[in-house]
Amino acid sequence: MKLSISKEETYERQQRFLSTLTDKQLECAILFNSTDIFYLTRFYFIPTERPMSFFIDPTGKTHLFVPALEVEHATEFSCVDQVHSYPEYPGENHPMIHLKAILKELGFEHNQIGIDSEGYGSPYGYSGASVRQLIDAEYTSIHGLVQEIRYIKSAAEIEIIKESCRWGNLAHRLLQKYSIQGSSEVEIELRASQEASLAMIETLGQEYKPHGRTARAGFRGQIGEMSAFPHAVTQNNILKNRDTLVTYAAADVWDYHSELERTMFVNEVTSEQEKYFHLMYGAQETAFQHIKPGQPTSTVEREVQKYYKENGIQHLTRHHTGHALGLLIHEAPFFDLGDHTIMKAGMVFSVEPGIYVEGLGGFRHSDTILVTENGMEMLTYYPRDLNSMIC
Amino acid sequence: MKLSISKEETYERQQRFLSTLTDKQLECAILFNSTDIFYLTRFYFIPTERPMSFFIDPTGKTHLFVPALEVEHATEFSCVDQVHSYPEYPGENHPMIHLKAILKELGFEHNQIGIDSEGYGSPYGYSGASVRQLIDAEYTSIHGLVQEIRYIKSAAEIEIIKESCRWGNLAHRLLQKYSIQGSSEVEIELRASQEASLAMIETLGQEYKPHGRTARAGFRGQIGEMSAFPHAVTQNNILKNRDTLVTYAAADVWDYHSELERTMFVNEVTSEQEKYFHLMYGAQETAFQHIKPGQPTSTVEREVQKYYKENGIQHLTRHHTGHALGLLIHEAPFFDLGDHTIMKAGMVFSVEPGIYVEGLGGFRHSDTILVTENGMEMLTYYPRDLNSMIC
Repeated sequence: MKLSISKEETYERQQRFLSTLTDKQLECAILFNSTDIFYLTRFYFIPTERPMSFFIDPTGKTHLFVPALEVEHATEFSCVDQVHSYPEYPGENHPMIHLKAILKELGFEHNQIGIDSEGYGSPYGYSGASVRQLIDAEYTSIHGLVQEIRYIKSAAEIEIIKESCRWGNLAHRLLQKYSIQGSSEVEIELRASQEASLAMIETLGQEYKPHGRTARAGFRGQIGEMSAFPHAVTQNNILKNRDTLVTYAAADVWDYHSELERTMFVNEVTSEQEKYFHLMYGAQETAFQHIKPGQPTSTVEREVQKYYKENGIQHLTRHHTGHALGLLIHEAPFFDLGDHTIMKAGMVFSVEPGIYVEGLGGFRHSDTILVTENGMEMLTYYPRDLNSMIC
Repeated sequence: MKLSISKEETYERQQRFLSTLTDKQLECAILFNSTDIFYLTRFYFIPTERPMSFFIDPTGKTHLFVPALEVEHATEFSCVDQVHSYPEYPGENHPMIHLKAILKELGFEHNQIGIDSEGYGSPYGYSGASVRQLIDAEYTSIHGLVQEIRYIKSAAEIEIIKESCRWGNLAHRLLQKYSIQGSSEVEIELRASQEASLAMIETLGQEYKPHGRTARAGFRGQIGEMSAFPHAVTQNNILKNRDTLVTYAAADVWDYHSELERTMFVNEVTSEQEKYFHLMYGAQETAFQHIKPGQPTSTVEREVQKYYKENGIQHLTRHHTGHALGLLIHEAPFFDLGDHTIMKAGMVFSVEPGIYVEGLGGFRHSDTILVTENGMEMLTYYPRDLNSMIC
């Protein structure tokens, strides 16, 4: 089993990117987005104040622009023709002055350049000129272009996402095991995440390079009444009898993600909790039935909303049904009324319609699915039925 | 002990922000930066595809703009006069259409508006119009303005950062304890982080809201020869005899950070390792001696570089001496030749000059310090001497 994307596949990605540039009559491109740079070069870095960039010059050669402290790392791990560097940010000369000289030398001037953004955009204390200010050329925004190439996952990517699901599943199983009345939220999370991570690294061995984070599971504060806040943050709570719990579990592999969330109950479930659980379950089933290649993603949301209306619970909903994921935990396209992207085999989505009842709790399962030639395949495989959800 | 910033202090921050706007003859402002929004409102959120914004209207009233799923959360936790929301992103109508209507109603049109960026900038599948396209007004970039207010930490912020240092210290102690020849990098990290986090939450109790992450320590792959890569990523390595280790430890409290890094050695140290260790130690001492209010931050870097030259090791260095930190792990200003910000009491910096010797390893301690009225105070307090660094 491969736990990384091969160099061959990385070069294929670059070819695909290059051909979309050609389709747009662009001769070169400059990217600052760290996820897209990792996708296109295998160069994984921690964004800080120091700008980094990937560019393709007018002859089709690929380049990385990195600070001095990343040169060896970039040279050893990345798939590019050339690695350029600058001493430091802010430095005696701003890195953009170095970049300008390099771009000039490579013939970017007076060319058609695609850029993903105006410049490097890290919040970690960076500020600097936009690319337009550096080089006199014709600029076209290609914001989102690599993300679109990322929509369709390859066989290797799907295998890695499945590996992520496996360890998320274990972390979640342990989370459920330790979700005992009187236990502290953070303690349960730590124990489950720790045990699952140890099992993960023992099993995968040294081939596993934990870009991102190892296996983990938790509640993000979605415990009892607080579970009615769909994106709550950890509150360090103690589990009480009959608490509704909304969980999450994940494990990053080569920085690919999966999403698994469950609605669970401490010890026992009231008839009211049961009612909303089944309504949520039905909403997720409705979504699954409408995931098919060739249909717009908005169809799924429209059908789920129809289901909400039929059951008189539209006022209890707060968000769309799901989102794509891969190298980021949320990616476009979305199962949303306003997103009409056509579903295609190879797309990976979360399916997570939610119902939120003030004073009672939140009800949301999230599963990661793959769009197939005929419909969809579940990539997460944790039990979904009510009986399995009682801790 | 307070583990959060009070509402009173939050309102004072807003007043300070408002008065800097007035100084710039701006009547209102729109911010998209999530860190600045948390700083000014106490509203902590997980950025996704859904845009959020904070704005001050021409009458000085404060507002948050959030998706429907964050309304209750924003209303309960934030310090603003009004919370506005939109149904969903992308939604049937793009959130920026909702924002436009709100801004118009609040009288932003034809006004002097300060903006921190052109629009919401999350990489999680978002795309949308710039603010300029929404509202006809005079725009001034105030990018970095709140960051500048954040330069000087209050007494409450310093106490929180000290709390962060305490738990980072414990995590590091455990990391050192478990750094035994033959152990796996990830296993050591997980054990140390787990134990320190459990002690942290037991000690701090329910008042502790883990915005960010609990205590943790690790190597980021900086083990043996790989420690010569200053920002390596985890490689899941096994510790060998005489390996040079470059570590880190941290613990977020109310999303405030601290930084502690040490150069350690497995079992024993060679005379070559000892030589570079002492050179690094001397560089850090040099930096400490030159941290004084009233001096530009570049002085510190210049003195450290002078030390490098005197010792003939400038070619072994890769990065500047340090950076400010607080709500972000790296913030401006920097101990860098190109940064001439005047040091003031209340600023918090990392001090981390590093030496990197190919084939041998990296040598870097990092400590978090506070600029005081007379010089500086160490906030991290882990031993720094060679004898204490042998695992």
